[in-house]
Amino acid sequence: MSSSYVLGPHQYGKAEVRLVRLERGAPEHDIADLTVTTQLRGDFDAAYTDGDNAHVHATDTQKNTVYALAKEHGVTSPEEFLLVLAAHWRAQPWVAGTQMTAGQHRWDRIGAGTPGAGHSFARNGGEVRTAVVQTDGDETFVLGGLTGLTLLKSTGSEFSGFPRDRFTTLPETSDRILATSVTAWWRYAENPPDWDAAHTAARGALVGAFAATHSLALQQTVHAMGAAAMDAVPEVAEIRISCPNKHHVEVDLDPFGLTNGGEVFVAADRPYGLIQATLQRAGVPAEPRAWTAVPAFA
Amino acid sequence: MSSSYVLGPHQYGKAEVRLVRLERGAPEHDIADLTVTTQLRGDFDAAYTDGDNAHVHATDTQKNTVYALAKEHGVTSPEEFLLVLAAHWRAQPWVAGTQMTAGQHRWDRIGAGTPGAGHSFARNGGEVRTAVVQTDGDETFVLGGLTGLTLLKSTGSEFSGFPRDRFTTLPETSDRILATSVTAWWRYAENPPDWDAAHTAARGALVGAFAATHSLALQQTVHAMGAAAMDAVPEVAEIRISCPNKHHVEVDLDPFGLTNGGEVFVAADRPYGLIQATLQRAGVPAEPRAWTAVPAFA
Amino acid sequence: MSSSYVLGPHQYGKAEVRLVRLERGAPEHDIADLTVTTQLRGDFDAAYTDGDNAHVHATDTQKNTVYALAKEHGVTSPEEFLLVLAAHWRAQPWVAGTQMTAGQHRWDRIGAGTPGAGHSFARNGGEVRTAVVQTDGDETFVLGGLTGLTLLKSTGSEFSGFPRDRFTTLPETSDRILATSVTAWWRYAENPPDWDAAHTAARGALVGAFAATHSLALQQTVHAMGAAAMDAVPEVAEIRISCPNKHHVEVDLDPFGLTNGGEVFVAADRPYGLIQATLQRAGVPAEPRAWTAVPAFA
Amino acid sequence: MSSSYVLGPHQYGKAEVRLVRLERGAPEHDIADLTVTTQLRGDFDAAYTDGDNAHVHATDTQKNTVYALAKEHGVTSPEEFLLVLAAHWRAQPWVAGTQMTAGQHRWDRIGAGTPGAGHSFARNGGEVRTAVVQTDGDETFVLGGLTGLTLLKSTGSEFSGFPRDRFTTLPETSDRILATSVTAWWRYAENPPDWDAAHTAARGALVGAFAATHSLALQQTVHAMGAAAMDAVPEVAEIRISCPNKHHVEVDLDPFGLTNGGEVFVAADRPYGLIQATLQRAGVPAEPRAWTAVPAFA
Repeated sequence: MSSSYVLGPHQYGKAEVRLVRLERGAPEHDIADLTVTTQLRGDFDAAYTDGDNAHVHATDTQKNTVYALAKEHGVTSPEEFLLVLAAHWRAQPWVAGTQMTAGQHRWDRIGAGTPGAGHSFARNGGEVRTAVVQTDGDETFVLGGLTGLTLLKSTGSEFSGFPRDRFTTLPETSDRILATSVTAWWRYAENPPDWDAAHTAARGALVGAFAATHSLALQQTVHAMGAAAMDAVPEVAEIRISCPNKHHVEVDLDPFGLTNGGEVFVAADRPYGLIQATLQRAGVPAEPRAWTAVPAFA
Repeated sequence: MSSSYVLGPHQYGKAEVRLVRLERGAPEHDIADLTVTTQLRGDFDAAYTDGDNAHVHATDTQKNTVYALAKEHGVTSPEEFLLVLAAHWRAQPWVAGTQMTAGQHRWDRIGAGTPGAGHSFARNGGEVRTAVVQTDGDETFVLGGLTGLTLLKSTGSEFSGFPRDRFTTLPETSDRILATSVTAWWRYAENPPDWDAAHTAARGALVGAFAATHSLALQQTVHAMGAAAMDAVPEVAEIRISCPNKHHVEVDLDPFGLTNGGEVFVAADRPYGLIQATLQRAGVPAEPRAWTAVPAFA
Repeated sequence: MSSSYVLGPHQYGKAEVRLVRLERGAPEHDIADLTVTTQLRGDFDAAYTDGDNAHVHATDTQKNTVYALAKEHGVTSPEEFLLVLAAHWRAQPWVAGTQMTAGQHRWDRIGAGTPGAGHSFARNGGEVRTAVVQTDGDETFVLGGLTGLTLLKSTGSEFSGFPRDRFTTLPETSDRILATSVTAWWRYAENPPDWDAAHTAARGALVGAFAATHSLALQQTVHAMGAAAMDAVPEVAEIRISCPNKHHVEVDLDPFGLTNGGEVFVAADRPYGLIQATLQRAGVPAEPRAWTAVPAFA
Repeated sequence: MSSSYVLGPHQYGKAEVRLVRLERGAPEHDIADLTVTTQLRGDFDAAYTDGDNAHVHATDTQKNTVYALAKEHGVTSPEEFLLVLAAHWRAQPWVAGTQMTAGQHRWDRIGAGTPGAGHSFARNGGEVRTAVVQTDGDETFVLGGLTGLTLLKSTGSEFSGFPRDRFTTLPETSDRILATSVTAWWRYAENPPDWDAAHTAARGALVGAFAATHSLALQQTVHAMGAAAMDAVPEVAEIRISCPNKHHVEVDLDPFGLTNGGEVFVAADRPYGLIQATLQRAGVPAEPRAWTAVPAFA
């Protein structure tokens, strides 16, 4: 190999470790169901250039560490558990930075009133609560988030006043279906008193703002959702939101002698609009290191 | 091409028509979100042998029919809507039989107390309510069902007493996680008074029996679930259930000086057990035509 | 549970066992990469009704058996390997019937001329070779097949002469794109001298007939493909083919002052046409037991 | 909404526009099958803050533009076509920057020697050629790439010499299967004479280096692959590679009285190792604007 290349940014680790952690102490079990990815940054150059693994904490070891620390510390929230993982890894030699991420899959209790009620659960859908903890040397950054939160308004959405050029055919509309599947990450400038309560408040604000906003553009709705989440959780300094516009196309029923009247729609798969934006609390300094290797929009 | 071949069973149609039907009359909108597939059987042989389309109702026409009849008749339940579609198609020339299937995606209302509450919804997860209506000549058969109902018991499940041969290494266990994702179809021998109520009752019985059954084998749980669904809905004469056994493997923490104690598990992707069975109400004659081209297990 | 229910058809086993089998003897390694599912039928009723596992060969044992027999017998072809598995399981007590299925993922050799050429491979796409071996008592049935074979003709496809009713809007066309993703199963009435050669011949005939047929309907193409496969492999007595019609819609460029001329298309996801048919060699008796629990079309 | 928030980075556009472009001039048709996403950056703030769409080029217009420009300019390569799209959009008012991305799906010719050979194709697998063109004001940046290139070495891979701590259980190995699915992006510091030839050369170098490298760590293989790609295409100044380590676990056959001997493996789904790194040509200045909103690793 030529010597004329330099190794740039890199990270490595174990991805998608599937962890289910039960708390069996009480008559009612608690379940935490997470998909965890751990990534290390630092002085691992010799592995790349010479196949020298003296610094390479095996990804298998990273997997074992997830399970062992889940036993030792429990999993009270994804944020808390990732903080435990991050503290472990940043203390290892040759580790200059870390990225710990998790998706939490939700389960609801079932069987109320039956013998199995305390330990029976149904999976709650496609939405996933997400968390990212990153370290850079001694500093630690925490992002909360969610993905797969699918929302729809059957009215209360307009789209008009946009530029018309040679390639514009879209008619203006004062009433359309607005549907999206929200992915959001929010940065905690400081730790909230209760990670679960903070997540619930942020999620509730996102949903509530979507419902309450009479939408002139999905951009406007995204902005209102982000602001509401920051209003609801004072520790949140910044939020990134990525929202597909899942188009619902009113079917032309005229050829069949019918008037649609905004009642029959095609739910289209592709293409879709895609609106991605960041909202920041005024006066709070940016912290790019919190967002390393997290999708950025511009 | 050789003349020594005969055309055997066949069907054709349009698959996965995405239909969203709103009811806008009341202050609160209702939304029905369906994926519909329509299939025709009958005298379409000349299309295969000679490319003669004189009998071939275009699949594009079948798609249009979904949207037009959704406007004309509304979509009060997937079963009811498929009955409308089936009645339309079985009346057409050259159509000897039909298979109409739908998956209904559930939406919950959101935004209680806000201006948009009456027309704002969040998608409820991965579970899909399914329905199949089939006709054979003048006769009509209806199946209800669901798929993607993911359930878990964190205790109350054993597995022991199985044969041990040269290739058996699995230890017996008196306490394991039992998890599955239920797919079920049930045949209505007669129409229930309310399709939605019947579905709710059947689903509730499946979930309740899963929770209440102390499981000695997933087979036993499947049997209890099927029986409970038929107990709950007297019009159901038969039920087919397909349940993967989504293995949760207790992690060996001994190498780390830790005792797991049934608290830390790997949620495995593949392979998985697969239990598939049919339960029939005693004394009710079988009706194979109801199940044409629906997955059978043996 | 009520005693008024009877257990109908059922089967159980281990699904999606991921097996990679190397042959390392020669300087050039051979690789067989299969996803295997094994299913047993027979007297397993007590497991359903009483949770009695005395007859239940654990699905974990079934998985182990896949790996152990792969070592002992090698994997020369999916059909041959499934025959080994089937012979093993049908000899066990309480097993009245079996269904063994496999998907084989293809790898091409890479690195010609370099030191690693004999043991380096690139995965060949989305197409999967499939096989099913079923036993019923002492009898054994073999299906070959494939799925995910995606084909496209950019011309040489028409669709016209179809019925026009109130809901028909599709114009006739004498030139369209025809695209599909072929799934096929074919039944060997007797074992061919070479499973791989038979598969290659059947696949080649399917592809060749798709290319060579000037299509008046996808039905006609499906028929020609099935006949060609049976022409190519005399041991094949029957073939089932399922072909989506993956619509490519010519974009209306008139609003932009452009004439499309059959050059610019939308490749649509959903809905799609779906054509499913069976072709049988004349004079060969049907064998429904070969097709138990394999998708049927009518 | 509170006034205390500021809009940070944002972009919007149309995602996953499915475009098939035929060239029908010659007896043999050419086909380009692309999935295109267009994103605009610039002064769109009023849409977010006030629902004012006066600056918002509709995403529907962006979709139309893809199809219209595909007609006007043809699609000779994804890079060339994205350059056309980027030139169009960066000339519009309020557009300060753009990100144009495409995945190209490959088709091989089929039916050699038959009448349909000139216009019949089979889809070539899961691998996708990718391209990104970004503009920032008057400057334009081009990335080539690919994803889904799945490679496997059945020997010639070791992993040893890694640190052992309390959570390390992985044994060292001098012979394992090494498998990965390559995603790579490479930055062209200047346009190559032929985009297709450059892509072919880079891809060939990645594959060749994977095969030829005796691997002591996947990191080492990744580094060798990146260096080889830059050796092969002098216009490439930088390459980012993301490689999962798709684990193949040798099955313990000892309980069955068998010796595995490196012949029977489980192909595991999750978790997987994940190695991500950047390689840069020495002395060439970095160009972060080329990588805006493209996955970064650290």
